[in-house]
Amino acid sequence: MKRVALFGAGRIGRIHATNLAALPGVQLALISDPMVDAARQLAAPLGAQVAPSLDAVFADASIDAVVIASPTTTHSDLIGRAAAARKAIFCEKPVDLSVERAQACARAVAGAGVACMIGFQRRFDPTFNEARQRLDRGDIGEPEMLVITSRDPGAPPVDYIRQSGGIFRDMLIHDFDVFRWILTGDGNDEAAWLSATGSCLTDPAIGEAGDIDSTAVTIRTRSGRLCQINTSRRAAYGYDQRFEVLGSKGLLACGNHRPSEVTQATAAGTRVDNPEHFFLQRYREAYRLEVVHFFEQLQNGRPFRTTVQDGVAAQVLADAAAESLRTGQPVTLQ
Amino acid sequence: MKRVALFGAGRIGRIHATNLAALPGVQLALISDPMVDAARQLAAPLGAQVAPSLDAVFADASIDAVVIASPTTTHSDLIGRAAAARKAIFCEKPVDLSVERAQACARAVAGAGVACMIGFQRRFDPTFNEARQRLDRGDIGEPEMLVITSRDPGAPPVDYIRQSGGIFRDMLIHDFDVFRWILTGDGNDEAAWLSATGSCLTDPAIGEAGDIDSTAVTIRTRSGRLCQINTSRRAAYGYDQRFEVLGSKGLLACGNHRPSEVTQATAAGTRVDNPEHFFLQRYREAYRLEVVHFFEQLQNGRPFRTTVQDGVAAQVLADAAAESLRTGQPVTLQ
Amino acid sequence: MKRVALFGAGRIGRIHATNLAALPGVQLALISDPMVDAARQLAAPLGAQVAPSLDAVFADASIDAVVIASPTTTHSDLIGRAAAARKAIFCEKPVDLSVERAQACARAVAGAGVACMIGFQRRFDPTFNEARQRLDRGDIGEPEMLVITSRDPGAPPVDYIRQSGGIFRDMLIHDFDVFRWILTGDGNDEAAWLSATGSCLTDPAIGEAGDIDSTAVTIRTRSGRLCQINTSRRAAYGYDQRFEVLGSKGLLACGNHRPSEVTQATAAGTRVDNPEHFFLQRYREAYRLEVVHFFEQLQNGRPFRTTVQDGVAAQVLADAAAESLRTGQPVTLQ
Amino acid sequence: MKRVALFGAGRIGRIHATNLAALPGVQLALISDPMVDAARQLAAPLGAQVAPSLDAVFADASIDAVVIASPTTTHSDLIGRAAAARKAIFCEKPVDLSVERAQACARAVAGAGVACMIGFQRRFDPTFNEARQRLDRGDIGEPEMLVITSRDPGAPPVDYIRQSGGIFRDMLIHDFDVFRWILTGDGNDEAAWLSATGSCLTDPAIGEAGDIDSTAVTIRTRSGRLCQINTSRRAAYGYDQRFEVLGSKGLLACGNHRPSEVTQATAAGTRVDNPEHFFLQRYREAYRLEVVHFFEQLQNGRPFRTTVQDGVAAQVLADAAAESLRTGQPVTLQ
Repeated sequence: MKRVALFGAGRIGRIHATNLAALPGVQLALISDPMVDAARQLAAPLGAQVAPSLDAVFADASIDAVVIASPTTTHSDLIGRAAAARKAIFCEKPVDLSVERAQACARAVAGAGVACMIGFQRRFDPTFNEARQRLDRGDIGEPEMLVITSRDPGAPPVDYIRQSGGIFRDMLIHDFDVFRWILTGDGNDEAAWLSATGSCLTDPAIGEAGDIDSTAVTIRTRSGRLCQINTSRRAAYGYDQRFEVLGSKGLLACGNHRPSEVTQATAAGTRVDNPEHFFLQRYREAYRLEVVHFFEQLQNGRPFRTTVQDGVAAQVLADAAAESLRTGQPVTLQ
Repeated sequence: MKRVALFGAGRIGRIHATNLAALPGVQLALISDPMVDAARQLAAPLGAQVAPSLDAVFADASIDAVVIASPTTTHSDLIGRAAAARKAIFCEKPVDLSVERAQACARAVAGAGVACMIGFQRRFDPTFNEARQRLDRGDIGEPEMLVITSRDPGAPPVDYIRQSGGIFRDMLIHDFDVFRWILTGDGNDEAAWLSATGSCLTDPAIGEAGDIDSTAVTIRTRSGRLCQINTSRRAAYGYDQRFEVLGSKGLLACGNHRPSEVTQATAAGTRVDNPEHFFLQRYREAYRLEVVHFFEQLQNGRPFRTTVQDGVAAQVLADAAAESLRTGQPVTLQ
Repeated sequence: MKRVALFGAGRIGRIHATNLAALPGVQLALISDPMVDAARQLAAPLGAQVAPSLDAVFADASIDAVVIASPTTTHSDLIGRAAAARKAIFCEKPVDLSVERAQACARAVAGAGVACMIGFQRRFDPTFNEARQRLDRGDIGEPEMLVITSRDPGAPPVDYIRQSGGIFRDMLIHDFDVFRWILTGDGNDEAAWLSATGSCLTDPAIGEAGDIDSTAVTIRTRSGRLCQINTSRRAAYGYDQRFEVLGSKGLLACGNHRPSEVTQATAAGTRVDNPEHFFLQRYREAYRLEVVHFFEQLQNGRPFRTTVQDGVAAQVLADAAAESLRTGQPVTLQ
Repeated sequence: MKRVALFGAGRIGRIHATNLAALPGVQLALISDPMVDAARQLAAPLGAQVAPSLDAVFADASIDAVVIASPTTTHSDLIGRAAAARKAIFCEKPVDLSVERAQACARAVAGAGVACMIGFQRRFDPTFNEARQRLDRGDIGEPEMLVITSRDPGAPPVDYIRQSGGIFRDMLIHDFDVFRWILTGDGNDEAAWLSATGSCLTDPAIGEAGDIDSTAVTIRTRSGRLCQINTSRRAAYGYDQRFEVLGSKGLLACGNHRPSEVTQATAAGTRVDNPEHFFLQRYREAYRLEVVHFFEQLQNGRPFRTTVQDGVAAQVLADAAAESLRTGQPVTLQ
């Protein structure tokens, strides 16, 4: 039985708490959040305790692993302390908005020799993961081109955007990880050239906050594979999460998930459901499967699908995109 | 906190056990099965006890409700005893292969004034239920015609078929309930005329066992609404579960659920996943939602979506279909 | 160069005229219609002449073939006279509303030894014909079950319905031919049992005219294959023309044709075009291909895909359906 | 009656010849091709004459219009001579591989005051054109982002590639025109910034010929609208021609056209037809509609949907893409 402490009782923390509580062989022992009431409300029905303090968590020798679902700004500190305390670590993306601090986390984890997984849940989505497995099986031959469409139903509050690190670090971080997973995931290739541009088209307030809401990114790998990512903070029809990979022998296209399979035909047209509107619903199964994976690999001492190095690498691409947008020039990556 | 006893630790019993164990406000207290080892293996990880005997279950005043997932032949007896013991009842379909015994169950339940729900899980499937809600909203006007396609991936063992009561009672019982739910669900209409035919096309052994494997049933209601049901014990491409309802203002078509939304295009063609192959997977969410519904309605003293009367009514249609097949003539229903 | 005379300058006559005029090796020489102005307007731009009289057409030795697109009531007489005059015959469905007269036509054609093709255009639809070819190739093994959905966008005027011969002869005649083509097309099987029911649901005036507008027909073949046909005079979403055939190794499903492949996603939902609304548009290519086939087979002295015997056989099924509806009993066919 | 001369009896010339011959009010009078036999074979069945010489065509006062379907290298000369001879001009894309010569053609046409249309057939494709009309109607609000997927089933012979002007001028010229039509078609916007990259992934021989086979292009307009174009010379599953435009109120996605609407489900999966494999088949209707448009607008003295200026503008974008690929830097357009 693995005893686990959870940091963060917010939106994403609650998701992890429910999934952890339902895992056989895992006990959600402690929940820590500065907002003690939130922690208490979450802990009670799940039979967990509220952690008296951060120190108490790291001092508790009976805690085997920590799940970090607190604000991004706290990640690197908690990873460092968990590594020092020899706890296995599951940390929500991103590792940190700063590549330097993210790299420091990677060093701390490596130094302490603790297991650390980053929560890029898309790699655990049944549809995306099925595509990756077919790619590995060679069903479409050698991958050549990846087109990622990634659109939110609507923009977050401008206050959030102001401290988000910008659209590349906040939103495209997932897409950069998908690019690496699909086009360079075989370990034989790497991003070599990146060009990013974008605009503020959905809400001037986003521009006034110094960010953009619509982006177009292109990445070329050392072997010449190509990736195009198009993103928007607003898709009136819902949460649009698709990618297509062209291979030497065919195409794999990942479509959206819909709430139901009802088709309705009237004089107004033939319509199907829009995509799942909310990311916690769209990736509900992925959030469950990633913690299952975390404890399975922990149990068997096997590597995670998404390591802290993956977290660093995605951050490097986000920085490159931000620089390309700023300078109007492509960035060469080594 | 409702304390629940489960009868049956088989395939379907295990599904219910897992769902019950995860329900807030519900405690899976006892599991009863003649195969004590199966009951023990199921109970242990879920923190439930193995019931020493049937009598012990019904004698236990702390048990509020029973979930009956044991073989069909045991349903009517268990319903009767549970009613006598004043336990709320959730019973898997069918109530009983005999309409008379099913009606006796209905009387027993009514007499004892206990709540009784029959597990027609299709009414809780997200896709089918969404269609019903749109129908209620009037999205396609007045329902006129229903076409049900219901095909299993493959036939069960002939030994099972021999004691199944025949394809109409064993397999179409669900489709008869869907017909009632969709075409007469508003309570303003009823089946008036039924014609059934069929053949043995997939396996001669099924014919030798006195059954058929392919059927075509037509039902006309008092108001003239029409329903056609086509079923087969074998669909090489998986578990095919669809229906389409034509209304005065349009069509609602319920499609199959697929394991993933990956589309793969190669020189061999453009293909999507086949339907979920296994009924426990296809209706996984429906099985969860029906027990949620059971305890919610129980809590609020509201009626169930699927009553014991619904169970009887579906059985009556199954008998009519069997008679129509035997005589080669339509059956008039009052 | 084959010289052709066309009977009928109405809606369907105009379609055939345009297709004939564009056929290499075919000269549309004469057009005959009691409404001489209609004939003249159609003939002029196509470089055809208006036939002075029916007699003149049959007396003209330079005419090799006739295309009969005049009202149903004139078909049998024109077939008889064309046979007597040794002209090759293309006649629109149906041969005649009376099976007896249709059989007389078959005898006349056989006696004269002239080629005669009936215009069941659905057998030439690219989608339906592709399905038939895959069936012949054995792509889904042995055919077992056929489900035909056949719905018009709206009912014709009641005056038309009054003299239409009823929905089975007027509308389902096509579906009966599709049944024969798909389930018994290999010549190894035949319809053995038919049960039909129906209602008047879309417009009481249709009922007052002695007809119905919604039907459900079931046919079982000698070998036990099953067919269900559901039809309605009204589909608010357009002209719904689909069939699905289940085989021992899989399913072939023929979907509707749409005007465009645009998918539009907005807050209101994700929608595609409704089916082609008008039968002349839906079957535009089929109408072209059937006359191409007529002259190709004529040229090579090969049999037609749809003979006058097929026309008679479809009429027999239509009569059986009408009788089954009248008596409320199934009909056994020899 | 407009009398027309056709230059070119090759693959595309034959398409135009057939469409011209079927147009009411149009007479295909002359066909000119250095390969006189090809011209003769094409002319004979269509009742056209073979032009004795180019001079004879331009000297023939009875010729109202010319259709230029000869090799690209001949376009500018023929446009110039047709303009001088005061013939209306329909010219296949591209105007010329050199922007300078294309601009000279535009000047010649303007100077002579003759009507000149360039054959960008995609603007006449029923699906693409339907999307444009919905955009004009405001069905998805303001256009923000365009993603074009444009892939050939296979690469042309390397000899062809060597003199093609490169993939941007030869293949993407259509996509650059689609970009202008969809994102700047309202005349209120223009391309401001373009970045192109690419690789040789499908066949080293293409690289040795100095070209690439896989490209990723991004264009930003003055108002900040974004366009991404991904192309490949090889798609194992057929001719992939799609685009998606995101607007402030929704999405318009143009899918591929398929030969039939048959869905086949077997143990191997559920598959639909691959896209039309050959461009002449995919755009068959578009080729017909563009010449219909040419003569309609000519008749009514209204402007063409695709002018010689559109041809020049697409060429400018192709040059910019070639330069961006060469320098590895984005290109700013005025």
